[in-house]
Amino acid sequence: MPVGLPPSQVSSSCFLWTLPGGLRVAFERRAGPGFAFDLRLPHGSAHDPRGQEGAAGMLEEWLFKGAAGRSARALQDAFDDLGVRRSGGVGPEATRLGASGLKDDLGAALALVADVLLRPTLPEAELPVLKDLARQDLEALEDSPADRLALGAREAAFARPAGSVLAGFAHPASGTLQGLAALTAAGLRAHLEGYGQAGSVLGLVADLEPEAALDLAVGALGGLRSGSCPQVEAVFQPRVRVHLADADAEQTHLSLTAPGVAPTDPRWLPWQVALSALSGGSASRLFHAVREERGLAYAVSASPVMLGGRGFLTAYAGSTPARAPETLQVMLAELARLPRGLSAEEFRRARAGLSASVVFGAESARARAHALTRDVAVFGHVRPLTELRCRLAALTLEGINGFLEDYDPASALTTVTLGPEDV
Amino acid sequence: MPVGLPPSQVSSSCFLWTLPGGLRVAFERRAGPGFAFDLRLPHGSAHDPRGQEGAAGMLEEWLFKGAAGRSARALQDAFDDLGVRRSGGVGPEATRLGASGLKDDLGAALALVADVLLRPTLPEAELPVLKDLARQDLEALEDSPADRLALGAREAAFARPAGSVLAGFAHPASGTLQGLAALTAAGLRAHLEGYGQAGSVLGLVADLEPEAALDLAVGALGGLRSGSCPQVEAVFQPRVRVHLADADAEQTHLSLTAPGVAPTDPRWLPWQVALSALSGGSASRLFHAVREERGLAYAVSASPVMLGGRGFLTAYAGSTPARAPETLQVMLAELARLPRGLSAEEFRRARAGLSASVVFGAESARARAHALTRDVAVFGHVRPLTELRCRLAALTLEGINGFLEDYDPASALTTVTLGPEDV
Repeated sequence: MPVGLPPSQVSSSCFLWTLPGGLRVAFERRAGPGFAFDLRLPHGSAHDPRGQEGAAGMLEEWLFKGAAGRSARALQDAFDDLGVRRSGGVGPEATRLGASGLKDDLGAALALVADVLLRPTLPEAELPVLKDLARQDLEALEDSPADRLALGAREAAFARPAGSVLAGFAHPASGTLQGLAALTAAGLRAHLEGYGQAGSVLGLVADLEPEAALDLAVGALGGLRSGSCPQVEAVFQPRVRVHLADADAEQTHLSLTAPGVAPTDPRWLPWQVALSALSGGSASRLFHAVREERGLAYAVSASPVMLGGRGFLTAYAGSTPARAPETLQVMLAELARLPRGLSAEEFRRARAGLSASVVFGAESARARAHALTRDVAVFGHVRPLTELRCRLAALTLEGINGFLEDYDPASALTTVTLGPEDV
Repeated sequence: MPVGLPPSQVSSSCFLWTLPGGLRVAFERRAGPGFAFDLRLPHGSAHDPRGQEGAAGMLEEWLFKGAAGRSARALQDAFDDLGVRRSGGVGPEATRLGASGLKDDLGAALALVADVLLRPTLPEAELPVLKDLARQDLEALEDSPADRLALGAREAAFARPAGSVLAGFAHPASGTLQGLAALTAAGLRAHLEGYGQAGSVLGLVADLEPEAALDLAVGALGGLRSGSCPQVEAVFQPRVRVHLADADAEQTHLSLTAPGVAPTDPRWLPWQVALSALSGGSASRLFHAVREERGLAYAVSASPVMLGGRGFLTAYAGSTPARAPETLQVMLAELARLPRGLSAEEFRRARAGLSASVVFGAESARARAHALTRDVAVFGHVRPLTELRCRLAALTLEGINGFLEDYDPASALTTVTLGPEDV
């Protein structure tokens, strides 16, 4: 970084500031007519109070039911008047409020999101309707084997830390039937008190002078309350085996979860290369062994998941009941041979694929704003694209294989299956 | 268009050429390190020979099982070596082969796709495996109520034209069990003879001189055989009512289909504005009436669908069995009041939303290459973004409402429901 630049500048186009109240603002200047921002609050479904599962999901819906004197309808109309597209939602780790639109409307869009967060109406009459919608979403999840499997896998793989008052990772953002029934207006209002600058990040992409971007962010969100940044540990349960019976399912679905590498660990990129060789392209190991060579499953994949500041490997396949045992066996074998390392060609391919995906993942302003926010929240700093590509280029086969020697996900695997019969 | 420019130039950055063999090449020059292309062949699942449902889907898989002396594995490795990401697949109307990557690899990626299309190995031993995978995909569709509903809706709404030898719109790309059983190597090879320059379009986005882009396209695909461009009419069946019983479903799913406006019709954009007011944003009519006011359904939407050169309105909602009848009633009421027109505010919002979506839809090179291809194939010409935004800006409330006076989708609606009991 050139000497003399203010510490806020992390590359020629990327900036990171911390407001006095704690909110971090990551900005990337980019030519183009549009803007996108993504405000990430560190309150996801995992931080729902135990027994009030669904709190974060319900709160996110409730916040938009009117703000700063506007009715719910007027608020929605105000967003639509700007032609902005809202984004965001509630995941296990965070609630995200975002918008994208044309540059002249950035200030107004930020002001609307600030109204929602700082001056919401929170009309109590809406709560029964919102609970009903959340229950409908839970019913829809019941109709989706893949969603049921994913939830079952989280429940099996991640235990709630003993004594924690937070609900953890085993329920969807819409909550649970019991949790929804227990939610009250007062409880949700108290939960909202935690939504503030602590641990929150605003990612912003627009063609603006950095000072102008900072001014807009401070003007809209500088007055946000302090809030809190609760932590939920992702305590992995190794070697759990669960079968979820579904007599009517045509398919058998398989989910594997294993420990991985934390985003802040220097081995993060080597791990990404290994995962890419495992599941990144049409020549990847899982795709080839399960689908191309044996025709065992129409869909098979593995991917990294970040929870509670850690990284985990998850793998999925959908197969026939008759072929599920062999599918599982082949997937296990592929994981078990990871410690033997990649070939030079696999390494080169996996790295080329990751390098290209860095370029393409940043094309959309909306995706880039989200990546900025995630970088700061999960990796602790902004990762400029050029730096990321340089670091990928600097990786060596020896480095990857040195890492893999000690990486044996198969030995700790937790396996959840769903289908008409046990696998 | 300035006088003196070659007829190939359609805007400052867009070009359209027709090769001697008939292939049309649409190119957009765009700064950036990446390229994307999308080759659209006018052979989709609707063009499967009757009784051989699944032919296009199977052929697309088979093509990648080796080409130009490369084994399947070597071909996949060659794509992965370039770090390119393949895209495409088989839809009702077309087979698409595409790739994106870094600019220096464009020529090699185009050459690989040309190999696949012009010099495929088509190993017969792979067919049983591919049939198996297709059957697995059909089983997975059985487990997905939303997918079953969508297929049921196509079957109810679109009759196969009497006497047609083509299968039409009522089956998925993976085919049918009977169709898959009937597929033979010889039959598929004969089907492939139709895949050529006739009716095909290459969309290409890269930072290249137009002449260089054209040279690359001609070099790779100029030798493609003539091929054929079969037509399947989308013959809409109005006022059909079908219920698909699913005793185990937790939810009831609703699908509505109605006539719309053809892409080549001057009323296309007014129709898009009306659909956007119906279902475009959080203030849209369907979202507001079904979800926000009454909490009847977690998800509700309407969107345009283009089939056989025509346009159709489709709407979807997922509700509880108890609330499905009211959900259907409210959706019908919203469609029935379209002829009374939009308010000035609704018009302004819908247009602002569409205008912003034009900007954001073009951000990704991959999405833009696909849009170029679709523009030429479906709209008959390239629609430069600036022109599209100008045409949106020129629309008036009077124009939209004049169109809507004669647009009454509710009167012809075909309705398909799926759930534990009839609606």
